[in-house]
Amino acid sequence: MTTSEAVEDVTDRAVEGGYVQPVVDVAAMTTLLDGRYAEVRQLVRDNLAEHRQVLLDAESMTSADFRERVRDVVVEIAATGQTGMGFPEAYGGGGDIGASVAAFETLAFGDLSVLVKVGVQFGLFGGAILQLGTEPHHDAYLADLVSGRLMGCFAMTESGHGSNVQALGTTATYDPETDEFVVTTPDDASRKDYIGNAAAHGEVAVVFAQLEIDGASEGVHAFVVPIRSNGAVLPGVRIEDCGPKMGLNGVDNGRLWFDGVRIPRTNLLNQFADVTGAGVYESAIENPNKRFFTMLGTLVQGRVCVGGAGINAAKVALTVATRYAGVRRQFEATDPDREQLLLDYGMHQRRLFPLIARTYALHFAQEYVAGALHDVFMGPGPTEDGTDETARRKLESRAAGLKALGTWHATRAIQECREACGGAGYLSENRFAALKADTDVFTTFEGDNHVLLQLVAKGLLTDYASEFEDMDQFGMVRFVAGLAVETVIERTSAHKLFTRIKDALPGGDQWDQEAGLLDPNYQRAMLRFREEHMLGGVARRLKRGIDSGVNPGEVFSQVQDHVIAAARAHVERMVLDSFVLKTRELPDGDQKVALNLLCDLHALTTIEADRAWFMEHGRLTVARSKSISREVNGLCRKIRPLAIDLVDAFGVPESMLRSEEILR
Amino acid sequence: MTTSEAVEDVTDRAVEGGYVQPVVDVAAMTTLLDGRYAEVRQLVRDNLAEHRQVLLDAESMTSADFRERVRDVVVEIAATGQTGMGFPEAYGGGGDIGASVAAFETLAFGDLSVLVKVGVQFGLFGGAILQLGTEPHHDAYLADLVSGRLMGCFAMTESGHGSNVQALGTTATYDPETDEFVVTTPDDASRKDYIGNAAAHGEVAVVFAQLEIDGASEGVHAFVVPIRSNGAVLPGVRIEDCGPKMGLNGVDNGRLWFDGVRIPRTNLLNQFADVTGAGVYESAIENPNKRFFTMLGTLVQGRVCVGGAGINAAKVALTVATRYAGVRRQFEATDPDREQLLLDYGMHQRRLFPLIARTYALHFAQEYVAGALHDVFMGPGPTEDGTDETARRKLESRAAGLKALGTWHATRAIQECREACGGAGYLSENRFAALKADTDVFTTFEGDNHVLLQLVAKGLLTDYASEFEDMDQFGMVRFVAGLAVETVIERTSAHKLFTRIKDALPGGDQWDQEAGLLDPNYQRAMLRFREEHMLGGVARRLKRGIDSGVNPGEVFSQVQDHVIAAARAHVERMVLDSFVLKTRELPDGDQKVALNLLCDLHALTTIEADRAWFMEHGRLTVARSKSISREVNGLCRKIRPLAIDLVDAFGVPESMLRSEEILR
Repeated sequence: MTTSEAVEDVTDRAVEGGYVQPVVDVAAMTTLLDGRYAEVRQLVRDNLAEHRQVLLDAESMTSADFRERVRDVVVEIAATGQTGMGFPEAYGGGGDIGASVAAFETLAFGDLSVLVKVGVQFGLFGGAILQLGTEPHHDAYLADLVSGRLMGCFAMTESGHGSNVQALGTTATYDPETDEFVVTTPDDASRKDYIGNAAAHGEVAVVFAQLEIDGASEGVHAFVVPIRSNGAVLPGVRIEDCGPKMGLNGVDNGRLWFDGVRIPRTNLLNQFADVTGAGVYESAIENPNKRFFTMLGTLVQGRVCVGGAGINAAKVALTVATRYAGVRRQFEATDPDREQLLLDYGMHQRRLFPLIARTYALHFAQEYVAGALHDVFMGPGPTEDGTDETARRKLESRAAGLKALGTWHATRAIQECREACGGAGYLSENRFAALKADTDVFTTFEGDNHVLLQLVAKGLLTDYASEFEDMDQFGMVRFVAGLAVETVIERTSAHKLFTRIKDALPGGDQWDQEAGLLDPNYQRAMLRFREEHMLGGVARRLKRGIDSGVNPGEVFSQVQDHVIAAARAHVERMVLDSFVLKTRELPDGDQKVALNLLCDLHALTTIEADRAWFMEHGRLTVARSKSISREVNGLCRKIRPLAIDLVDAFGVPESMLRSEEILR
Repeated sequence: MTTSEAVEDVTDRAVEGGYVQPVVDVAAMTTLLDGRYAEVRQLVRDNLAEHRQVLLDAESMTSADFRERVRDVVVEIAATGQTGMGFPEAYGGGGDIGASVAAFETLAFGDLSVLVKVGVQFGLFGGAILQLGTEPHHDAYLADLVSGRLMGCFAMTESGHGSNVQALGTTATYDPETDEFVVTTPDDASRKDYIGNAAAHGEVAVVFAQLEIDGASEGVHAFVVPIRSNGAVLPGVRIEDCGPKMGLNGVDNGRLWFDGVRIPRTNLLNQFADVTGAGVYESAIENPNKRFFTMLGTLVQGRVCVGGAGINAAKVALTVATRYAGVRRQFEATDPDREQLLLDYGMHQRRLFPLIARTYALHFAQEYVAGALHDVFMGPGPTEDGTDETARRKLESRAAGLKALGTWHATRAIQECREACGGAGYLSENRFAALKADTDVFTTFEGDNHVLLQLVAKGLLTDYASEFEDMDQFGMVRFVAGLAVETVIERTSAHKLFTRIKDALPGGDQWDQEAGLLDPNYQRAMLRFREEHMLGGVARRLKRGIDSGVNPGEVFSQVQDHVIAAARAHVERMVLDSFVLKTRELPDGDQKVALNLLCDLHALTTIEADRAWFMEHGRLTVARSKSISREVNGLCRKIRPLAIDLVDAFGVPESMLRSEEILR
């Protein structure tokens, strides 16, 4: 923000250099963004428009009424097939995981209580039945849940245990006498908390609990537990409403206690482990850690969906704020007789355009990750050579990382857009109120973002030693500084690290000082260098600390910010790569020129934001650092004439923007 | 965030160096923070506790009911004298401006609809009557408004004109036939918008309008216009509710249109200008610009109050989040049998402690500015030598700058605290929901923060030429790149700039490379250097652009981010100075040691956040930059044992924290 000197020069040169302002074909850009699932997205847009009244109801109804309203909307859109696309056709689904993600993301243009209710019902509850259950469970529940006739909960989180799922306190003890499990909440820290669908609508819950047989614990497993019948809470179950929340008040979050609730043995979701009638525990996956994380891994779709929802919520905010800046005038700046459009102020461009560029970047990264999700889950299944396992681990890491960046982006973009609309941004009719309040929890649910980035880092450290493919991928989350990391570092030589870092930069050490700032190879090499360097640094620091006999937890605490920065650097690099590759494959023309402007803006603002680090690590001279800031300002001025078209291309339905007063 | 290497070394050295962990006497620290107005603050705390139910009512009541509830609370606390402290004793006030600010700030610990309603009624409406009116107006309104019997509006902002007050469209035309003004809203862009007390409770409004006499405009003036009588809207007035808002739904914001509403000539608030019965316009201030900004300048108290409210709202969030981190455990990090407290994670310390330090820094800066406000407004009035004028201009600049930094800090701190509490942070009972939603508009009201920083920059540029004391201080806001700035630059030689920058650093160019990082002179010199350098750069760029014949508005647009950064650097320096000076004057002892830790943490995180700039401008080597990050981590570890006491010392009443579930 501090250096925008001589932007005029940059612009002049660009014009002299034969730069011709591209024209954005809005419809064509929307088609590009919608990608493979354009039809699915259009169905969702139509449904959103059909139910546009729900945006107003969110403001005027009591929480109790609005919950019913949201439930009704969910059931109605379920009937159009929109919410069941990821389920097998035999149960009324669409049999297409990728379509299911596209539908969910697009739903984020509208009321987010509807979105989250859909996520709870079809993603979490339905996903658990589908992925963790077997045919009898599918037959018993899928058709009813796909239609919305049977509402259910995903009861994992406890008051005392959020991210640390392996430490859950709820128990499910096998009783061989009756061939049942007895589900119990031992203390208040183990009550299930923040559970969607629990306070009002859920009739069954998938409960995650410590499976105990004969006094021995087999770890966390999932069980189907009925909690209501015809609206009445069942004996042994206690339910409490979580009460008013910052947002999403159309979702009935609640707390659950179980007091010796008995369920048939067959209610264990037994895809990965089972208990025989004789009380013998059986699983094809021998390692308990691996079993646990394989179970959790099947739920990766939730993270992909939340990340995508965050990105699409940001699109709504950016569309309103950019259009507003295109009609709102303030102060007579260039013309004494007419106030100037906000969009013509340099500072306003600096506030909005990098966010637009980053939204495009994240969109394409999300498209890539959603595609990988589709391929992994729709693929042929386990392969001899373990490539499917590798693909799953990569997917889990990418989904975690992109969820963190996508949801943080939403928080930041929505806030900036709100402020950029001044007092008007504070009125509910202009959408920011709901967007802010409803998306805020995205940064914490489906995994706290900081914890997710630690998970990404763990995966990266593991990659340093190729033998580690089958390690407990999520182990770092539970005990990050323990055995796993230690062993990784032992097997990674400093030499190997150094070589990898050098390889990241073609043409040797000085290459980057001569490359053009707008050369995507330069931009990518910079982010690659940062990622590798940070990762190597983390590994060295962890090793040094542990070698010196310090408590591993203590070592981790001291290195934690570095660990998280390394993970973030990795995801940033991945996001830029997606954008560059997407743009590269386009035919020459205005669309490509426009996307290249955005891609350059995204790359350079990403480097600029961390330019201190690049200078500290010898990758950026002072002069070059300043020239990046100039270039960013120059790019903003080039994007100015395209800005409205670029946000219109997001394809947010007009009725979802509301803002009739300020955009007219 | 990226470099925390070797923090262990720093800590070791500190211990070896004889560092002894201080103990914080919470009560003594609260006394220090409360300062001169400890009694006033205690009265407010008692009132907050008395009316604690309003925090719950905010969640459960309809907007309509909650507005009535908030009105009742406001009237009840008015009866305790809390809200009238700034008014003359003759009208039931307390006759102490400083006390009035202290009371308002402290009220921000509670429900913020109550706070804002108080601000609207006593600060804006009451302040306008007091400062812009004369004895007849005081006699007519003050006693009733101080008691809350007469509710009123401050009708300045229009839909089409927020920050640009001089461009307001509402007109008040003098009719000599009837000795009246005719108030008219010419078009929808000129309707009054977002006006507090307008939708339900206001009976009169102070309306800002273009004064027209005989077809000529005399600029914007303030008029008392009755809008309701016994709850019924008066003829010629149209009122519309602004509808649901992101927060502050206990405040009845509305829109006002006037259709030829006639008011007596004496309803002009005539402190600075008057119209005679014959229709002659008279003012002791000849320059219309100066007159306008003198009028606006008297309303500076509002900005001081909003800044203070933001800082105190941040205290609530930090108290909840820090205490929560002191009881919440997650993952077995250092001990395999017990999960670790969040507060013992390095990353968590990094997230919270710099915000605590900054809150202390802003608190002391606010104390300083509120003191200056008191002195200016309670002082003897105009002096021969114009020192009072200088003091007013300085106050206006500082109030604008601190309002921007204080309210941005609130937004950022509350968000970080919310996320640091995970899912629990999302429940309304844990306070973040209301804090976020209610404070969000602070960054835009009483002046958009970006516009306010431009105003600060204008003042600084003006300071470059001492002849400019009587220039229109606020002119930059209206037409920043016009005559004023041009002339300033003409009179400022490059040589003078350079000298000032060198003077900022004692001991010459190399001094800072050898100074200790914890030397407050070093820290202050760094911020001083940045401020001077940025300011000089802005002046040069403006001059270069204007000299080359580019449209001044165009030049300004290109330099705008630099202008705002310079202003921000100025305010940051002022904030650090306040903290350093406050700490220096304390007697030796644990309190001083603890505050020095916070002051160092604040100074170094401020430098760290902009370390790229310091490297780019030759003030920081790579090695020193990295050592600052290490030092910051070391300071966090020293503050860890004090953290809970440091937030408890803010003195937020227990009942205002709520969070019974998560803090028990």
